Amino acid sequence: MSSLLLDTINGKQCSRRPVWFMRQAGRYLPDYKAVRAKAGNFMTLCQSPEMASEVTCQPVEILGVDAAIIFSDILVIPVAAGMELNFVEGEGPQFKTPLPQCGLKDYNSKNSLSYVYEAIKASVRRLPTNIPLIGFCGSPWTLFAYMVQGSGSKDFSKAKSLLWSDPTFSQNTIDFLTNKIIEHLELQVEAGAKVVQVFDTWGGLLDTQDYRQFCFKPMKKISTYFALKQIPVVLFTKGSGSYLSELSKTGAPILGVDWTVSLDKARKIVGEDTVLQGNLDPIALCSSKELMQNKLKKLLLDHGPKGRHIVNLGHGVTPQANLETVKSFVYSAQEMSERLMAGELK
Amino acid sequence: MSSLLLDTINGKQCSRRPVWFMRQAGRYLPDYKAVRAKAGNFMTLCQSPEMASEVTCQPVEILGVDAAIIFSDILVIPVAAGMELNFVEGEGPQFKTPLPQCGLKDYNSKNSLSYVYEAIKASVRRLPTNIPLIGFCGSPWTLFAYMVQGSGSKDFSKAKSLLWSDPTFSQNTIDFLTNKIIEHLELQVEAGAKVVQVFDTWGGLLDTQDYRQFCFKPMKKISTYFALKQIPVVLFTKGSGSYLSELSKTGAPILGVDWTVSLDKARKIVGEDTVLQGNLDPIALCSSKELMQNKLKKLLLDHGPKGRHIVNLGHGVTPQANLETVKSFVYSAQEMSERLMAGELK
Repeated sequence: MSSLLLDTINGKQCSRRPVWFMRQAGRYLPDYKAVRAKAGNFMTLCQSPEMASEVTCQPVEILGVDAAIIFSDILVIPVAAGMELNFVEGEGPQFKTPLPQCGLKDYNSKNSLSYVYEAIKASVRRLPTNIPLIGFCGSPWTLFAYMVQGSGSKDFSKAKSLLWSDPTFSQNTIDFLTNKIIEHLELQVEAGAKVVQVFDTWGGLLDTQDYRQFCFKPMKKISTYFALKQIPVVLFTKGSGSYLSELSKTGAPILGVDWTVSLDKARKIVGEDTVLQGNLDPIALCSSKELMQNKLKKLLLDHGPKGRHIVNLGHGVTPQANLETVKSFVYSAQEMSERLMAGELK
Repeated sequence: MSSLLLDTINGKQCSRRPVWFMRQAGRYLPDYKAVRAKAGNFMTLCQSPEMASEVTCQPVEILGVDAAIIFSDILVIPVAAGMELNFVEGEGPQFKTPLPQCGLKDYNSKNSLSYVYEAIKASVRRLPTNIPLIGFCGSPWTLFAYMVQGSGSKDFSKAKSLLWSDPTFSQNTIDFLTNKIIEHLELQVEAGAKVVQVFDTWGGLLDTQDYRQFCFKPMKKISTYFALKQIPVVLFTKGSGSYLSELSKTGAPILGVDWTVSLDKARKIVGEDTVLQGNLDPIALCSSKELMQNKLKKLLLDHGPKGRHIVNLGHGVTPQANLETVKSFVYSAQEMSERLMAGELK
């Protein structure tokens, strides 16, 4: 069954741009909050295939987006490796004992992360056949940063310091994570995901030397692995402006860009062969429909009708997003991009 | 009296690179903390010319940096315009009533900010004649963002939303701030500052359209004003990777860059006429001397011996910096850059 997302990725002629957005199963959506309340806590929701598939499919059913992304968390990998998470309300998740104080155990993804694959299977059963499901994980460096820092951070100073003071341990851990990520993504594809996205949330914090060694190289390994299997990979780096040219050398066929790079400039940097994904500032979804539509129109025109573009945000939607504006984002992107492709959007 | 900093800016042949660093009068330094404790609170320290000049001169006397930067705060401008600040320990400063709820009053910088100019005069008297003093302020958008948000923020969602929902009010406020910034910087120069730096801390959060209108244009106005008076302006934008090419079009003779752009790449983007300032990751000052020196050597070699470069960090030093590593950063930058210029650093 063909789908707009896969047709766009594969370079087929399409009548409009596909649209989905990061964190589309999230707290801005009352229907999500109802299931989240029933689950009690975030990890229970991730680990319940029935509830996870319900929130995965909601944005398709309520908003009409052109793809679903499995509801899960990048931290399921460190949890499977034996790290214990604490959830403090109002703060992000925290590891009870961060690296390197805790040890990591090897594990079998098929067993330890079966709840993710079950949720994918349940979602695929529920989704219309023309709506593909996207699998995902964090980048090796992003997972490492969180596992060493123990929680979110402005500068991930502990993680950086460990990279420098113990590069062997750091490299080994990043290699372990890279393999586990490949295993996890591949099993998500086996379960029914058609595209996989790597969230490199903290890549933009590294200097050029460390970026190359600890971020670029493992991401290139992941991209190469899936390129050989012809499974499309999206790489998304927050604050990727400085690294866009490097990212295009990973071989990932799709790159997510944020709103600090205009799509015409991004297109010049990455060339014609890469699909671009993005790049509305998520804060625009907190404002009125009209203001959001102005920005949306500009980004569609920035890219132009030629070449391949997936409409998305430049980062995840925030809990404060206005639901009416979010709804309008989806149908406006569909309607405006159809006019764009027909040469009628000015 | 000549100085290494001004000679470098003016393109004279120098034996080594000048070095100073952002927030060099700060909490990593026990001598600073002693004065800060005596002052009781941060704003009292800013507003006492004697104590402010003492902490301004400490890094020159203790570390041997090649320039001093006046100890002050970017928020002195909104305070002069009548906004009231609350300081909560452990959190950043907060405005009691943010914009647009509060009104802004016009004021005479010479009177309202005289404490800054007095501190500059006292510092210049105390500094060796070959050590220039740098004046500074926040960029118009950075001040506006803080004044609307009321405090620091991850995304400055309120400030962005106001830009979009009331562009006229936003533009008028930014224009007011631009004029006040020019006035304030000019009076700092009259008091004895030889160079001025504009901290555009939050420019990297804007999309390309807003960046152009609300950030680039006012910064260009500031740069143009001081270019006519032949006063060197440094523009520093945090996360400037995406905007480096735009920044070079402001006409500012000196651009501060962060560690996510290597200096050879930055040089290619900005051309030969711009002085580059940066770009060690401040977290490197939290680690050992040896690790910091590796990174410092790499950045010196990245730029190379040709062209004009001021050694600095890519952002302000953190309170957690290791004092021995900070000391080593200063003398290593001086010693290594001398070898670089002599063709002996490999």
